[in-house]
Amino acid sequence: MTRDFPAALQTRIDTKTKPPGSLGRIEDLAAQIATLQARLDPRMERCQLTIFAADHGLADEGVSAFPAEVTRQMVLNFASGGAAANVFARAGGVALQVVNAGVRGGPFATEGVLDLPLGEGTASSLRGPALSPDESTRGLEEGARLGRAGDWDAMAFGEMGIGNTSAATLIAHRLLGLPVADLVGRGTGVDDKGLARKQEILERASARVPGTLSPEQVLQEFGGFEIAMVTGAMIAAAKARRLVLVDGFIATAAALLAVRMAPETRAALVFAHHSAEAGHGAVLAALGAQPLLHLGLRLGEGTGALLAWPLVKSAAAMLNEMASFAEAGVTDKS
Amino acid sequence: MTRDFPAALQTRIDTKTKPPGSLGRIEDLAAQIATLQARLDPRMERCQLTIFAADHGLADEGVSAFPAEVTRQMVLNFASGGAAANVFARAGGVALQVVNAGVRGGPFATEGVLDLPLGEGTASSLRGPALSPDESTRGLEEGARLGRAGDWDAMAFGEMGIGNTSAATLIAHRLLGLPVADLVGRGTGVDDKGLARKQEILERASARVPGTLSPEQVLQEFGGFEIAMVTGAMIAAAKARRLVLVDGFIATAAALLAVRMAPETRAALVFAHHSAEAGHGAVLAALGAQPLLHLGLRLGEGTGALLAWPLVKSAAAMLNEMASFAEAGVTDKS
Repeated sequence: MTRDFPAALQTRIDTKTKPPGSLGRIEDLAAQIATLQARLDPRMERCQLTIFAADHGLADEGVSAFPAEVTRQMVLNFASGGAAANVFARAGGVALQVVNAGVRGGPFATEGVLDLPLGEGTASSLRGPALSPDESTRGLEEGARLGRAGDWDAMAFGEMGIGNTSAATLIAHRLLGLPVADLVGRGTGVDDKGLARKQEILERASARVPGTLSPEQVLQEFGGFEIAMVTGAMIAAAKARRLVLVDGFIATAAALLAVRMAPETRAALVFAHHSAEAGHGAVLAALGAQPLLHLGLRLGEGTGALLAWPLVKSAAAMLNEMASFAEAGVTDKS
Repeated sequence: MTRDFPAALQTRIDTKTKPPGSLGRIEDLAAQIATLQARLDPRMERCQLTIFAADHGLADEGVSAFPAEVTRQMVLNFASGGAAANVFARAGGVALQVVNAGVRGGPFATEGVLDLPLGEGTASSLRGPALSPDESTRGLEEGARLGRAGDWDAMAFGEMGIGNTSAATLIAHRLLGLPVADLVGRGTGVDDKGLARKQEILERASARVPGTLSPEQVLQEFGGFEIAMVTGAMIAAAKARRLVLVDGFIATAAALLAVRMAPETRAALVFAHHSAEAGHGAVLAALGAQPLLHLGLRLGEGTGALLAWPLVKSAAAMLNEMASFAEAGVTDKS
């Protein structure tokens, strides 16, 4: 990228047949895409969503409204095309891949699921580290391998794992230094009593490991197999200059880990939506992120990222296909 | 629609493989679409954007940052495919039609522009009614004809007309009883001095006609040819049970006219985005509207409606394609 690139890019955006700035966030998005690719005519056609699924030891402590077996059931639902993520991926022309990052019940050994399990779910972080050092390192590496694979202009990383809003809450709590009470939410839908219980369990889990932790330590102590892989995938995809569509609360917690481990990752991140999950706003704020959509989503799976993809594609198309004032013979006020 | 339809619809949404309510606004949108079509399996595949273009007598009073000839130039830009609306329509698979509702300089007589001019631009509402009674009636009727035409599941109506934020401001001012100062904005980009001048001109125009006016009278006194056609088109499309995607400030002013003239129109309206134009929020609030997107757009042309279309399509696809807990063999918490 030459020193003049930012000026050339701004001129290209401002000479399109529209009042300057009148496409708002779409113009910012176009600039981010062009800068990431260091091209005035960026390519933004091919997008893949990878859903990483894994189980959580914390789920056995009673932090979720759904039983842990739903993780495995939902992976099969992804594989047969019936989940929300499948529907939105088809609607948006996004390729979908499903990874078993460590779901209880053994390998799926079925078409449509990539078996890369780090284990049979994590250990409960209430009682010890959720991941071993080896599991954590392998998770980051396997994720990175997938984040580099293929020929994608944009990549989204979704997650499925009963109990994983608890893991994400603990990650945000320890990296941001905010109270659990400010970050904990209803996840898939616990009631008031369940929420109080979830908060108490997470506070006890956190109290198990006092002091300041590195992002790698936070991942080991409180993370998840799918969160490790999403983190590694985001870092690698960003390094490959691919746009990374960040989904909801759990994916944003992984993005926070990724940015703390490799700060240059931030430039590739597009925050798809502001989730209804309680802690999401605080993590977004810490990342200086302004999400594209505010639709009250709280499903995960990458669904918010999929709904934002058409905006990303349109932003690049604006840059590539819109006529300039000169080309169209339209009078520019300036 | 049977008496049991609302309950059957809610059951259909809540038994999809996701926690209840976890798709937020997408679930509301799905319910609106299904209710409009009175079908649990609504069709939402075919969408058309019609851009109505016309000139405004008020433009000669110095209310805009761009000269009036830009209306005609932009119609040619639409016809040759180089405007933002063309780019976003292609990206979203939306058909586009361009109507000359009354642009100065005579018929276009060119492929890609439907010549239906009501005149050579409106008269200046600073000096007399913008439209004659006959022009107003013909505008509503021609719009209605186009709103009924074709076989569309959803229709969006865009506008192009230098000076038309002024017309929209006056319409909102007179229908809502709010001061011009609370509604007037920078349109295509007037500076502070221009904004003060615009406000003063609009206040003088309004003062020309004291008293309470019917929506039909407001349209005649202060409207525009394109606004009359958009209003008529919205009423007719809603009557045909088509979803109507409402764009920005000017389209929303037309929607306000449409709802005041035919209140049943409201049920078909989806508000695409919250524009950066100053008065839009007040008009949206008066309609009880919560727009889908908040992207700081202020271009018009239907661009915001086009960017919202993929969300609408995905909402219907959720209803039609997502598996239920029973179908997918996923444990429901309830």
